[in-house]
Amino acid sequence: MSGEVVDSNPYSRLMALKRMGIVNNYEDIRKFSVAIVGIGGVGSVAAEMLTRCGIGRLLLYDYDTVELANMNRLFFKPDQAGMTKTDAAVQTLAEINPDVILESYTQNITTVDGFKKFTDSLTRDIKGNSTGGKSGVDLVLSCVDNYEARMVVNQACNELRQTWMESGVSEDAVSGHIQLLIPGETACFACAPPLVVASGVDEKTLKREGVCAASLPTTMGIVAGLLVQNTLKYLLQFGLVSRYLGYSALKDFFPTMEMRPNPQCSNTACLECQHEYEANKPERDAAAKLKAEADAEEASRAAEVPLHTENEWNISLVDDDDDVAVFSGFTEESSAGTKDLPAGLLRELPEADLLDKAEMLENDYVQSGGDLDELQKQLEALNAL
Amino acid sequence: MSGEVVDSNPYSRLMALKRMGIVNNYEDIRKFSVAIVGIGGVGSVAAEMLTRCGIGRLLLYDYDTVELANMNRLFFKPDQAGMTKTDAAVQTLAEINPDVILESYTQNITTVDGFKKFTDSLTRDIKGNSTGGKSGVDLVLSCVDNYEARMVVNQACNELRQTWMESGVSEDAVSGHIQLLIPGETACFACAPPLVVASGVDEKTLKREGVCAASLPTTMGIVAGLLVQNTLKYLLQFGLVSRYLGYSALKDFFPTMEMRPNPQCSNTACLECQHEYEANKPERDAAAKLKAEADAEEASRAAEVPLHTENEWNISLVDDDDDVAVFSGFTEESSAGTKDLPAGLLRELPEADLLDKAEMLENDYVQSGGDLDELQKQLEALNAL
Repeated sequence: MSGEVVDSNPYSRLMALKRMGIVNNYEDIRKFSVAIVGIGGVGSVAAEMLTRCGIGRLLLYDYDTVELANMNRLFFKPDQAGMTKTDAAVQTLAEINPDVILESYTQNITTVDGFKKFTDSLTRDIKGNSTGGKSGVDLVLSCVDNYEARMVVNQACNELRQTWMESGVSEDAVSGHIQLLIPGETACFACAPPLVVASGVDEKTLKREGVCAASLPTTMGIVAGLLVQNTLKYLLQFGLVSRYLGYSALKDFFPTMEMRPNPQCSNTACLECQHEYEANKPERDAAAKLKAEADAEEASRAAEVPLHTENEWNISLVDDDDDVAVFSGFTEESSAGTKDLPAGLLRELPEADLLDKAEMLENDYVQSGGDLDELQKQLEALNAL
Repeated sequence: MSGEVVDSNPYSRLMALKRMGIVNNYEDIRKFSVAIVGIGGVGSVAAEMLTRCGIGRLLLYDYDTVELANMNRLFFKPDQAGMTKTDAAVQTLAEINPDVILESYTQNITTVDGFKKFTDSLTRDIKGNSTGGKSGVDLVLSCVDNYEARMVVNQACNELRQTWMESGVSEDAVSGHIQLLIPGETACFACAPPLVVASGVDEKTLKREGVCAASLPTTMGIVAGLLVQNTLKYLLQFGLVSRYLGYSALKDFFPTMEMRPNPQCSNTACLECQHEYEANKPERDAAAKLKAEADAEEASRAAEVPLHTENEWNISLVDDDDDVAVFSGFTEESSAGTKDLPAGLLRELPEADLLDKAEMLENDYVQSGGDLDELQKQLEALNAL
């Protein structure tokens, strides 16, 4: 992945994140595998964003086909109507960035057979080798539109101890959310289930013929953007990874919250994860202590050397009290005119220095015993400034 | 624009916004013209969102060509490299939704000639007829990457009394904003100009060979989404239209603010707009009073008829004090078992009714004069519950 700044380099603007001090290790993105479950209005855009970011491998799961009724959301094109969403996605994504390994799984993960194939695919590494029952991906993104599928992703991720992110958009299209789920550490999807899940009612019975949910490309694009931004922060370790971030479009309100695991969660695998997390506390504490010590050492080392060894922008700092221009690049040409304003700007009040000068002249006047001619000359000199 | 719920209708999920009670008049979107200046990482995605929403007409302005270095943002495809951004955009957008009128202006609006062509194009209506110097569009979206172009959009919109929205993404790619500008009512772009504009320094001198700004498809997609969401709210009159909405990706922070016009703004057209806005105050007040009266009348009329004349979901409301199930659909089958929990859920504490029963039994015990056998039987009956 080259950071060369030329128009022909598709990664130049991403590698610039290193120069800007945002990410230390952008090229590591080539090592990561992300699974996206549900390639609809959110999942397809998330897949495109990760593809354009140069992610190493994408695993795409969906069993639906593209319809013209999907055209009010980003990504799919009318001439893809009738194709499976996974095939259409691979077609578009491979064209955008052939560097990304794309794995397409056209299957319903909520069937017994589908669930087995789903967990099997998650336990292979980037080279396709079995990882012996451990997860072979770095993150799972759930972009599905029903609770049954979310519970299945939750089950697989709890079993594999796999961190995942959940996303959703409301049926009225004007709100959505993303959520980070770390088995044992945060609430799992079954820890505080929605009423329809807890009550065991089949959610399909709640949908009626001829009634469809609303959707908007804006809300789904924003939720996909927030989801992938959180993904980049999580994988490349920069900024604050949000545990839960909501979006309410009508008022541009973005609530956040944290959800701890429920010790009485109905999901057995979740309870196992919680016990493991509890058991690992001494280990975590020791690691946190080591890290704090290393950080302190690093900080004391850093204090000994200048903050910026290179000064490519030729910036120099001066004291606020100093009476010279702040931008050293301008001092030579305009050291005499540092108080000149750029063309078009006028000062409303005289500068402090001019006031001082006026005061000084006034004192001179007093000292000179009231010579009016002398004062007149001094005033003219002041006006000529 | 049909609201029919069939897979072949690209507008079904948008027209559903009416059924969901979000928008009253979704089909009005076909009447609106939106000009987008700058078809880059934000402008191209905004154009795609509006196209998929079925906007009436889009006017697209850019003079740049597509490069492979743009591939880390959504929209353009590698095989479009070398095309002008306007041509490439029209190619993609026409394929997505042939219902939208697309006008492509491949020109630099910051030249004298370009500015004239820009304002000329804004003063034609959806049928291409001259509007006699008045604006013929409903909104201008600024999606440019430099202040010079923003000042030009500001000048044109002040002169035409045209409401516009400004957008921007920082050079480190992790923050952005959108802003609504209503000439005379809110601050214009010159009312509180950025330092580089106020100081008159040519911003091109601040960019150096071989150094490029960072960009991310996430941040740009989110800013485009927020911009078009605000556009939909403004045009279709629903929700709260944000005056300023910021986005800081590192902390998922979304600041909002309002900026009033600067009475000492350097832009003459802005000062004229401010005077007009002030002069129109009595008219605005009268209109607001009329609207408040109409709303009050509407509310009193609404109070006389049931809130929902149709009850297609068969929902009935009951008093909190009533001891029957809330969902009327379930009452017949399970009126005897309303206290039964769904499988998998356990009560941690006894129900209030059971406590009452225990108390009742205790009272019985006292009344029965302390017969221990009787009490034992009553306890067994209680445990069998």
